Amino acid sequence: MESRVVGVLGAGQLGRMFVEAASRLNVQVRLLDAGQSAPAKQICFVPSASNPAQSEHVDGSFADPEKIKQLAEKVDVLTIEIEHVDARQLQAVLDAGIVKEVHPLPATIALIQDKYAQKKHLIAHGLPVADFVSVGSESALPKDPAAAAKEQLEGVAAAGRSFGFPLMLKSRTQAYDGKGNFVVKEGGKAIEGIEALGNGTRGLYAEKWAPFVKEVAVMVVRSSTGEVRAYPAVETVHRDNICHTVIAPLRYGKDATVGQRAREIAEKAVATFGGAGVFGVELFLMEDGELLINEIAPRPHNSGHYTIEAAETSQYENHLRAILGLPLGGTALKVPATCMVNILGLADLDKDKDAILKTMAPAVASLTVPGATVHLYGKVGCRKGRKMGHITVVAQSDAELHARMEPILHALETAIEAAQNGSSLPKALLPEGAREAAQASSSSSFSSSAQQTLDSLSPITPTQPSSLDFKHPHPLVGIIMGSDSDLPVMLPAAQHLKRFNVPFELTIVSAHRTPDRMKAYARSAASRGLRCIIAGAGGAAHLPGMVAAQTVLPVVGVPVKGSTLDGVDSLHSIVQMPRGIPVATVAINNSTNAGLLAIRILAAADERYAAMMQRYMDDMEEEVLGKVDRLSQQGWDYVVKK
Amino acid sequence: MESRVVGVLGAGQLGRMFVEAASRLNVQVRLLDAGQSAPAKQICFVPSASNPAQSEHVDGSFADPEKIKQLAEKVDVLTIEIEHVDARQLQAVLDAGIVKEVHPLPATIALIQDKYAQKKHLIAHGLPVADFVSVGSESALPKDPAAAAKEQLEGVAAAGRSFGFPLMLKSRTQAYDGKGNFVVKEGGKAIEGIEALGNGTRGLYAEKWAPFVKEVAVMVVRSSTGEVRAYPAVETVHRDNICHTVIAPLRYGKDATVGQRAREIAEKAVATFGGAGVFGVELFLMEDGELLINEIAPRPHNSGHYTIEAAETSQYENHLRAILGLPLGGTALKVPATCMVNILGLADLDKDKDAILKTMAPAVASLTVPGATVHLYGKVGCRKGRKMGHITVVAQSDAELHARMEPILHALETAIEAAQNGSSLPKALLPEGAREAAQASSSSSFSSSAQQTLDSLSPITPTQPSSLDFKHPHPLVGIIMGSDSDLPVMLPAAQHLKRFNVPFELTIVSAHRTPDRMKAYARSAASRGLRCIIAGAGGAAHLPGMVAAQTVLPVVGVPVKGSTLDGVDSLHSIVQMPRGIPVATVAINNSTNAGLLAIRILAAADERYAAMMQRYMDDMEEEVLGKVDRLSQQGWDYVVKK
Repeated sequence: MESRVVGVLGAGQLGRMFVEAASRLNVQVRLLDAGQSAPAKQICFVPSASNPAQSEHVDGSFADPEKIKQLAEKVDVLTIEIEHVDARQLQAVLDAGIVKEVHPLPATIALIQDKYAQKKHLIAHGLPVADFVSVGSESALPKDPAAAAKEQLEGVAAAGRSFGFPLMLKSRTQAYDGKGNFVVKEGGKAIEGIEALGNGTRGLYAEKWAPFVKEVAVMVVRSSTGEVRAYPAVETVHRDNICHTVIAPLRYGKDATVGQRAREIAEKAVATFGGAGVFGVELFLMEDGELLINEIAPRPHNSGHYTIEAAETSQYENHLRAILGLPLGGTALKVPATCMVNILGLADLDKDKDAILKTMAPAVASLTVPGATVHLYGKVGCRKGRKMGHITVVAQSDAELHARMEPILHALETAIEAAQNGSSLPKALLPEGAREAAQASSSSSFSSSAQQTLDSLSPITPTQPSSLDFKHPHPLVGIIMGSDSDLPVMLPAAQHLKRFNVPFELTIVSAHRTPDRMKAYARSAASRGLRCIIAGAGGAAHLPGMVAAQTVLPVVGVPVKGSTLDGVDSLHSIVQMPRGIPVATVAINNSTNAGLLAIRILAAADERYAAMMQRYMDDMEEEVLGKVDRLSQQGWDYVVKK
Repeated sequence: MESRVVGVLGAGQLGRMFVEAASRLNVQVRLLDAGQSAPAKQICFVPSASNPAQSEHVDGSFADPEKIKQLAEKVDVLTIEIEHVDARQLQAVLDAGIVKEVHPLPATIALIQDKYAQKKHLIAHGLPVADFVSVGSESALPKDPAAAAKEQLEGVAAAGRSFGFPLMLKSRTQAYDGKGNFVVKEGGKAIEGIEALGNGTRGLYAEKWAPFVKEVAVMVVRSSTGEVRAYPAVETVHRDNICHTVIAPLRYGKDATVGQRAREIAEKAVATFGGAGVFGVELFLMEDGELLINEIAPRPHNSGHYTIEAAETSQYENHLRAILGLPLGGTALKVPATCMVNILGLADLDKDKDAILKTMAPAVASLTVPGATVHLYGKVGCRKGRKMGHITVVAQSDAELHARMEPILHALETAIEAAQNGSSLPKALLPEGAREAAQASSSSSFSSSAQQTLDSLSPITPTQPSSLDFKHPHPLVGIIMGSDSDLPVMLPAAQHLKRFNVPFELTIVSAHRTPDRMKAYARSAASRGLRCIIAGAGGAAHLPGMVAAQTVLPVVGVPVKGSTLDGVDSLHSIVQMPRGIPVATVAINNSTNAGLLAIRILAAADERYAAMMQRYMDDMEEEVLGKVDRLSQQGWDYVVKK
């Protein structure tokens, strides 16, 4: 379908996943990397036509102009796996007509390499970044380091006067995974930071301290003609400045617009750059909901690995499509929730002979987790902090996602501890432990039954943490009522949700006494991951309708019977909503049915809840048929005798 | 994580997808295949340590005992990509201790190779198959072909007396993709069939004609200790005896239990075989709901390709896990609906120079389809009927799936026609056509807005086919009412579903006058893919509650106002359901709210409906605020004047 050959500068894990996407579309790839058995080369060996002992890849540094030229001669389109490449050389092979296209444009790569220039570019395009200022001269590579360092010292002092301390001192170039950053806690520490950041050999800038509440990332694919498509906004969690986990979709209860705003900012930012391909936009979310762009990577990114299993088209395939000028693929999530955990080297192999085993512990643990996929990059040996692989988990809800992550994160913590203490791992976290467990768990002989097959559907995890915990951290259903006096009526809803393992929360929200709380609750519900709200109310009974007016979720209303009018007042107040805003009303005082209706709403999109509801209905039928038997055996007066 | 090396007999597309799964887990694979650049070898070149010009794979036939031995010497575990291998030789290398494990067991492979023995095995284990009988001697390889052919002729006549004609005459061995089968339409055609099937050189058997309504397949993964896990049942559609499309989940409105029963039969069947790995079980679904096993493949299967994008763990990874004794991965669908279309060669390259372009037309079309992933196998050249690749499409509903498939299937039909006529393809179906379209569609300059970003979510397809078609083929919502006299009240529900692009059906179901129809409707609703039922009723108003009693889906009840009691009778009849069976009741005569509630129920699990509902609510607010303005500008009597 596609005869053009793509060249990539770099053949690490990003290149490996790119090669995987290219193989699926049968697109030929040639790689430039110093490692003869670099991760990407392992799954893409192309024997040279002239000498089959040689591959068609180029062994060498992607900083070497001669090697870049060699690669360019073999391919139609050049792209990069890492932005720390010689952009001038890429421009040179393009200008010389050695290669037809380079994506992203060399000018874009150069702009992004210089983080100070990147920030100036963003601000010139009206995009939000933290306040920043050049420290010392505006040169990225000062000619006289001693003089530059002196100038920089004055620069930090000046920045401190504007921004206060702490402030971030940053190297303009060669900065990634936290390298090139220094937190200057007070004016006196400036010299330390300058020394750490090249002591005048590199240009620096200072950034106002941004006390973010979350780190957010958005992958964006851009066609060569400027079409941009954002993937969903995700939350990234860093540890020691390296990406640890990525969670999608982003949840932020305080402000339902954050995810959408992040995507808009990211698309707007990527639209300003030239050339095609995927870009990773990292942002800070501030307490007040403000979003600031931290930095942009002009390539597939660690925060987009999840797209392989969880999005319509992966970031790697979309990068390929973009640089080839093919139509872009869908960027929507195809699953309700997903999380990625990096597998980082936990120790150096020369210091700890079990370094690899310890590093792989979370991967071993994930083999028993439904919805988990392990990616190992085929890196040789093990070094502390090195990216060795990652795990992606998909789930049908946030609650299920977190429950599935739990054993993986637990294995990781155990392994980190073992690496720190030099102790050995528990057997269950070793590959042979996993094999033995697999064999033990399945050694019971086969019995085919509806029950067994039903259970072979992934079990729904988790259950409510404690017997009737009112606040699951990732609820699917919210039960609210105007007053604790309604609790006896509303409790059966909670008990039924509990019985069906539905994560829920239960709290008091009063329409008349806490209108602000009601508004906040209703408006944040969908963005917090809730899928249904059960609201109980008596008398004038405004709560269900007023909540329904401020959320897109289905709201189930329970009319609570008061001391007068037998609950008919509540019923009519809840059910007789005006056209436009529905409330799903159940019988007076019948919160059991409200709970069951919420479960049916979940069952509409999750066959496991549907199967559980079917079993519940079958049990009811059986119970009544039992009474039929009893009546025929013991006579009509058994009820009276009981 | 895993140091054992896996050997595979065969390196075609199944091997290629297996290698992809192995690479992700960094498991080393060695392949045996006659093709030096067979599909799997292309993405798994392992240079030989002794001579880098050679690969560690084995070039040769997987029927060659010497080559099997060579491969066995290189690996720890042997498996197969195709069952037409020399099972005795596999047993020999196992017995000689050259390799530690072979999966599935050679005895299983041998059993499955002989389809008559396979059927006898299944029937001995109480599994359902079509009636069959040996034709002629029970030998799989008769010694005297002339005598055997004569005996077979008598055998067919005898089978005809038992089963009637037409009947299926089948070769016991070397049968796949329809090869080895012959339909004997009448007794006189028996000799033709015997000639077509080896004329006495192969053993034959006859099978009673099975006039199935659907073909069904279930992939099952089996651990070496006998744990079995079925994937969902799927519908397979064959064309010219070759798999054309696979659709999951299976839908069969007449009998909601079919999918579950198919899985149970498949698990039970696979449990009877020895050794680990993935098995494909093909079944016939008969008019009366009976399921008959047609045949079983002891390996990953064309009908399981969809698992790569649509299941928690792909069949390829699960095959790998099974043969290595690792814990099995989840087999549940992670998306609501999926379809796979095979890309088969449409012409021979030596007869039609555009054979490849025509064959690739559906792949080109799929580049513009959200949720579509193309797999090309890297086969050289093009031959009619050859499996060149496949396309998997995922979607959030059956309706969306079929809408997404539409352009792909249309491209396929266009290309088939072009191949048959020797005409050329329309430009839009050529790769450069796709590129030009991509560039044209995105040449409008970028504008960031909530609107645009919202639309960059995959658009919800399809709309209701005609303006108010009452019978969408893949509805998500069913609107029912007891009589056409309720239609004026219920129509706004349909209009609102239409406005939100929700596929629905509308029909008459009366609790009192068509109780059987009501039962059939309610019980089949979930298995037909419906997610919500809206039921309108007046007076005694039993329909919503009686439907709710026979489905697990959420049922929305609309009380219809009769000539007496102002609709309060209907309201109370619908809302006051006993504990256990909820009906989501809306206001009297307010089917608008029933439609909107159904959309909210869909929105709970699909953010696109949620976004549309939010926009609808924003529009309502704006409309009222417009009236506020008008009131303040034109005075309080503008309503009266209007």
